Amino acid sequence: MPNAERIMQRCDRLARESESASGLTRVFLSPQHRAASELVLGWMREAGMRAERDAIGNTVGRYEGAHAGSSCLMLGSHLDTVRDAGRYDGMLGVVTAIECVGALAEKGERLPFAIEVVGFGDEEGVRFGTTMLGSRAIAGGLDPAVLGARDADGVSIEQALRHFGLDPARCSLLRRRKGDVLAYVELHIEQGPVLEAESLPVGVVSAINGFSRLRARIRGMAGHAGTVPMRLRRDALAAAAECVLAVERIARSDPELVGTVGRIEAKPGAINVIPGEVEFTIDIRAPRDELRQLAVASAKAELASIAARRSLACEVELIQELGVTHCAPSLMVQLERAVAAEGVRVRKLPSGAGHDGQAMSALTDIAMLFVRCKGGISHNPAESITAADAAVGARTLLRFIEHFEPALR
Amino acid sequence: MPNAERIMQRCDRLARESESASGLTRVFLSPQHRAASELVLGWMREAGMRAERDAIGNTVGRYEGAHAGSSCLMLGSHLDTVRDAGRYDGMLGVVTAIECVGALAEKGERLPFAIEVVGFGDEEGVRFGTTMLGSRAIAGGLDPAVLGARDADGVSIEQALRHFGLDPARCSLLRRRKGDVLAYVELHIEQGPVLEAESLPVGVVSAINGFSRLRARIRGMAGHAGTVPMRLRRDALAAAAECVLAVERIARSDPELVGTVGRIEAKPGAINVIPGEVEFTIDIRAPRDELRQLAVASAKAELASIAARRSLACEVELIQELGVTHCAPSLMVQLERAVAAEGVRVRKLPSGAGHDGQAMSALTDIAMLFVRCKGGISHNPAESITAADAAVGARTLLRFIEHFEPALR
Repeated sequence: MPNAERIMQRCDRLARESESASGLTRVFLSPQHRAASELVLGWMREAGMRAERDAIGNTVGRYEGAHAGSSCLMLGSHLDTVRDAGRYDGMLGVVTAIECVGALAEKGERLPFAIEVVGFGDEEGVRFGTTMLGSRAIAGGLDPAVLGARDADGVSIEQALRHFGLDPARCSLLRRRKGDVLAYVELHIEQGPVLEAESLPVGVVSAINGFSRLRARIRGMAGHAGTVPMRLRRDALAAAAECVLAVERIARSDPELVGTVGRIEAKPGAINVIPGEVEFTIDIRAPRDELRQLAVASAKAELASIAARRSLACEVELIQELGVTHCAPSLMVQLERAVAAEGVRVRKLPSGAGHDGQAMSALTDIAMLFVRCKGGISHNPAESITAADAAVGARTLLRFIEHFEPALR
Repeated sequence: MPNAERIMQRCDRLARESESASGLTRVFLSPQHRAASELVLGWMREAGMRAERDAIGNTVGRYEGAHAGSSCLMLGSHLDTVRDAGRYDGMLGVVTAIECVGALAEKGERLPFAIEVVGFGDEEGVRFGTTMLGSRAIAGGLDPAVLGARDADGVSIEQALRHFGLDPARCSLLRRRKGDVLAYVELHIEQGPVLEAESLPVGVVSAINGFSRLRARIRGMAGHAGTVPMRLRRDALAAAAECVLAVERIARSDPELVGTVGRIEAKPGAINVIPGEVEFTIDIRAPRDELRQLAVASAKAELASIAARRSLACEVELIQELGVTHCAPSLMVQLERAVAAEGVRVRKLPSGAGHDGQAMSALTDIAMLFVRCKGGISHNPAESITAADAAVGARTLLRFIEHFEPALR
């Protein structure tokens, strides 16, 4: 049986690989990424897998099936974190998948298919602003031009890969052929409050919400905070403040919508200078694409009208967009059976957060199992789950694996 | 008559004494300070003054009155600059005062009082973070402990004075006796847009506004931008946005008030994370202390109520505060007469920016004459004035000097 205590301990252990002494921050291709990857490679090998890092920095383990070289069921999640992260977002899925393989290996059980476990190197996109690089490389959705993206220090992904000891030219070889990956299934914490509100340890994901990410720049006129009368100001931050509230108002207009301004920068940024330029980001998500597109259009219109009213220039740029990704009904049914076998009422729910499944869906069917987390809190050091829920999640995933039937094609 | 072309040329000439090849940056006790001071000493002597640098690095010229050793009318401004400064802020006042004395000397005119022109060494406070050192030394407001303040390289003012060839022990001797300085009058660019908006070349300053500087911190709850429903959020940035608009609204409630949020930082500051903590600054200024204090109290109350309504924590800290410095009515009347004699409509306006007069008011009556600047732009390489306005300013100042009557005491 999977060992929930070991799952919790390994999540704790990985949390120590952080760039900051307090809190958890681990970004793509950092020394902490390497350290976490080395730990995971060791655990994969202990669990009976062949394991190595691939050319884009994913940590990949393979447990052969009854016949060597079979197509695989791919499991996994990501090993990178946001800044000041929790310890389960991503890591729980990797560690639990390894635990399930270990349970099979312990029994000497070989299945009619191989199992691969992947710890993706970049899902959050914190360092380079480009998410799901690892899964996109495997699914074939990685435009080589993306490797030119740079971090805050001007280092490109390509340079960072080389510095990490990897060969960027080999990234394009990571793409799997359709049929080689029978399905991609990810266990992840819910990162929301639904399962807790319904007292359920796990739930089956129905779809991953679509998202639109925008970057807005407002240009006004910098000036002396003491000398420019209010009526003559063209304060970029006051305008941006109206925009932040407009985004909030739009997102509140429908319970299925969420909208967030997560970053803001006012320049020149001195206590006694009126901000002349402000940049901020907008993140809008919804379980229905048309609802999200309507919200994006409203936000753009509101920003333009706020800027116009204040005689400021405003540019809005769409930096990333992805529609709703539906989980495969055939996989959902199998997950539902595994949940029910645990004596848990089956709850299907959409994922508000993005996941590697969005990229993997270009290659194969995807499904996800959510584990309850405390207060719905995630992307926060207060992220918390119980060992009991981790155990239910691991047993459910193992039962799913043991009964897995690929879709007929 | 004062020569406006020469005033403009001398401002251009001083602008070449910069630590950077492009732009203008000249800080207290730097080699550029010495070079500018040497130029000014030369011009002062050319204009018929006895001139030397004092122990705190001020450049001081004296033009005797009809009787040697008379009390003086003190004119001047500062020779240091902010980083990436304009060429008129400070320098115009020094150069114009020298030009006026030169015009008197040319006519052989001696007045019933002496004239001293001071080019203060440190008004902006860029190097040591301590403003108005030169004027505080003369007015008697310089605590010797201040000389312990250090620059970014760890050099104290005391060490820098020695290195500059000055004797720090003599700074305390610079303090003038009340009565020895009949008044302090400074010509300065407006650094704001009021005169330009009203098509006036010059204006009479009524007071130097008081200011309050606050730092606010709002604490909410960081969370995942995709998973936390809007109704469960405690978004610190959305609250801060309301606060920015509240500060703007309060400052707009009275045409004499200005209020600015110049710095803002949202943490953790990721596109996909609800901000859990936001810090921002508030700068509030007014020509009446009670108006400013009322505005500060309103801002604090608004912030507290915004935070309470959103279930967030809010702390506000007062980091600096200085009351209004009033210009002497008797001097203002004399400046107004001089302005009117130029055929210019008299416009009285407060100074939003700080000036050496704030320190000098501890010693004597003060007054200021503002010269229009382009677009109200200052603290910026784009700072610009016309030779025609410089001429009006110089003629007005000269007329004021020639008709100057000290207040009866």
